[in-house]
Amino acid sequence: MPELRKDYVTDTWVVISPARSKRPGDFRIRSTPTDPEKCPFCYGHEHMTPPELLAYRREGPPNSPGWWIRCVPNKFPALTSEGEVHRRVNQLFHSVSGVGAHEIIVEAPEHDGHLANFSDFQVQEVITAYKQRYLDLIRDKRFKYILIFKNHGERAGASISHPHSQLIATPIVPRRIMEEVNAVHRFYETTGGSCLYCEIVETELEEGTRVVAENEAFLALSPYAARFPFETWILPKAHEMAFEDLADGERTPLARMTKDVLGRMHRLLDDPPFNYYIHTAPCDRKEMRYHWHLEITPRLTEIAGFERGTGFYINPVVPEDAAALLRGDVKVPSSVP
Amino acid sequence: MPELRKDYVTDTWVVISPARSKRPGDFRIRSTPTDPEKCPFCYGHEHMTPPELLAYRREGPPNSPGWWIRCVPNKFPALTSEGEVHRRVNQLFHSVSGVGAHEIIVEAPEHDGHLANFSDFQVQEVITAYKQRYLDLIRDKRFKYILIFKNHGERAGASISHPHSQLIATPIVPRRIMEEVNAVHRFYETTGGSCLYCEIVETELEEGTRVVAENEAFLALSPYAARFPFETWILPKAHEMAFEDLADGERTPLARMTKDVLGRMHRLLDDPPFNYYIHTAPCDRKEMRYHWHLEITPRLTEIAGFERGTGFYINPVVPEDAAALLRGDVKVPSSVP
Repeated sequence: MPELRKDYVTDTWVVISPARSKRPGDFRIRSTPTDPEKCPFCYGHEHMTPPELLAYRREGPPNSPGWWIRCVPNKFPALTSEGEVHRRVNQLFHSVSGVGAHEIIVEAPEHDGHLANFSDFQVQEVITAYKQRYLDLIRDKRFKYILIFKNHGERAGASISHPHSQLIATPIVPRRIMEEVNAVHRFYETTGGSCLYCEIVETELEEGTRVVAENEAFLALSPYAARFPFETWILPKAHEMAFEDLADGERTPLARMTKDVLGRMHRLLDDPPFNYYIHTAPCDRKEMRYHWHLEITPRLTEIAGFERGTGFYINPVVPEDAAALLRGDVKVPSSVP
Repeated sequence: MPELRKDYVTDTWVVISPARSKRPGDFRIRSTPTDPEKCPFCYGHEHMTPPELLAYRREGPPNSPGWWIRCVPNKFPALTSEGEVHRRVNQLFHSVSGVGAHEIIVEAPEHDGHLANFSDFQVQEVITAYKQRYLDLIRDKRFKYILIFKNHGERAGASISHPHSQLIATPIVPRRIMEEVNAVHRFYETTGGSCLYCEIVETELEEGTRVVAENEAFLALSPYAARFPFETWILPKAHEMAFEDLADGERTPLARMTKDVLGRMHRLLDDPPFNYYIHTAPCDRKEMRYHWHLEITPRLTEIAGFERGTGFYINPVVPEDAAALLRGDVKVPSSVP
C-alpha cells in the first residue's frame, strides 16, 4: 500500500508508491510515443482501462465507443482508494496512509488532438467533467485536497500521448496550497479584508506589461516572479474561492481563455511540453479564504542542481518579455540584441 | 542585469537572468553532447573560458594545459559579480539585485571521466578546490549563501559533458536552507540541545534498513522520505556545522564515500543522470546551528504536474528497497513480484 512520508527536517511530503515500481533497469527515461493501435484511450479500447466513472455520450452502453469525454480510474494509481487514513509519528518518522483517488479525464476521442485546437464546446465539456468529478470526490471525507492537472508531452511527464488530464485526491493538504492559503489569510488580516489574488489581478491590469490576454471573466498573466519561461496564470477577475463553484456562464469564457493561452504557446514555442494544474481551496471550507486559479508551466529548461539544492528557480526569460511575445507585440525578447 | 524576484504569494524566489536569454525557438531542450574538439574544459582550450580563478598544476603559466583541477567564472553566469545589493519592496513586487558569483570547477582534464572512476587523490582534490573557492567567496559580505553543486548528464541539466561542478553565491539565503536551519533550531530548543541531523545519523544507524554505506567519518543513507528513486544523503557522523570547516583528515573518507555511492549508482542504474549539492550553513554564522551534508538525487523519473502543483513528490521506489539495492543485498526491489 502506498504511504505518505514527511521529510525528517522540512515539511516536504513524498508519496512512496511501490505499486508503480519497476525493475531498476526500467527506471531510465525513454521516449515512447503511444501507438494508437495500443492506446487505452482510443475508441474500441475501453476494456483496456478500469470501468468508467463518468462519460459524456449520446447513446450506447458504458465502456463502449461513442463518448466525447470519458473519466476512468488510473490503472496505475499513485494512491489507493481503499482503507482508512492513519497518521503515525514515531521518533523522526511521520507517515500517513496512502489513501486517495487517482483518475484520468480523457479529453477527446481523437488520439492526436490538442486542447488549443479543440472546439469551444469540447473544452467546455472538459471543464464540466473536471467539476463533476471534483464534486463527486469532495463528498469523501478522507480527502483533504483534490488536484486537477495535465501533463502534455513526454518531457512534461505524459506517458500516454492521447490528450488527457488527471485528478489526484490526497489525505493531507499539500504544502504549496497551505502556503498560498496562509498568505491569503495573512493578507486579509493585515489589509483589513482584501484578497491577495484580487490585488494581483487589479495591480497587473493597471501595470499592463505582464498581461497576456483578458476577457469578460478571466485574466491571463506572466507572473512577476515566473519560475519558468512563459509560465502563465489564468485567474477569475471576480473573487471566487473555489474552481468547483464555477458558474455555468463562466465555462465558455474559461474554455476560450484556456484555448487562447495554450494556442499562443503552441504557435510561439512550437507545441511545447507543458503542465497545468488548478489551484482551488482545500476540501474543508470552514473559515477558508482563497481565490482559485490555473497555472500553466511550459517545460523548456531543465531543473538542475541549483534549483534542487536551493528551492530557487532560474528563469532566462523576463516575464514582461514573455508576456509581450505571447501577446504578439514583439518577435524576439527585448533583452536579445 | 539579473534580478531576484519573490513570488507575490509564497516565499519562492526566482533569478530572472536575461543574460542567458535566447530566441524563443531556442528554448526547446535538445541533446547536444559536447565534442571534445570544441570543449572549453579540455587541455589547450583554456582561452575558451574566462581567466582561471584557481588551478592545481605542477608547472606552466595560468590558463595553459598541465592542470589537474581548474576553476573559472561561468561564461554565462546566472548572477553578476558587479554592483551592490539593493532590495526593493513596491506593492506586491519584492526584488533583490542579481549580484552573486557563478563559477565552474573542472574536475579533471579527461573529457569522458566520471567521479566514480577517478582516483581517491583526484576526488580529494575536487573537494579541496570546493573548499578553497568557498573560503575565498565567503569573505565577500554581499553573499548570504554559497551552493556547490554538480549536474551530470543532459537530463540533469548539464550542457557540457566534460566533468565539472558549479558554485553559485546568492545575495539572500535560499528557502530550502532556511527551512532546514529553522528546523535544526526548533529541534535544538525542544530537545534542550540536540542536533536534528545527529539524531538522523544515530537513528538510521540503529534502524539499519536505510543505510547504504558507512566509513570512519561518513554515513550514506536513503532518507526515510526520499523524494526521488535512489536519492542518497552523505552526512558527517560527527556534528559539523559547515562543509568549509572540513578537516584535512576528513578529505580522504569523504572522497571515498562520494566515489563509493556514485559508483554503486553507476553500476546499478547504468550511469544515471544525477544532481548533487552540498548543504552547508549560511555565510552569516552568528548563532547559527546546522549540520552540513551532501544530497545526491538521480534523475530517473520526470517531475510532472502533480509535483509542480502541490510541492509533493511521488517516488515509486521504497527507500528501504533502494538502500538494499545500493548495498547489493538484493537484485530487484522486494515490492516487485
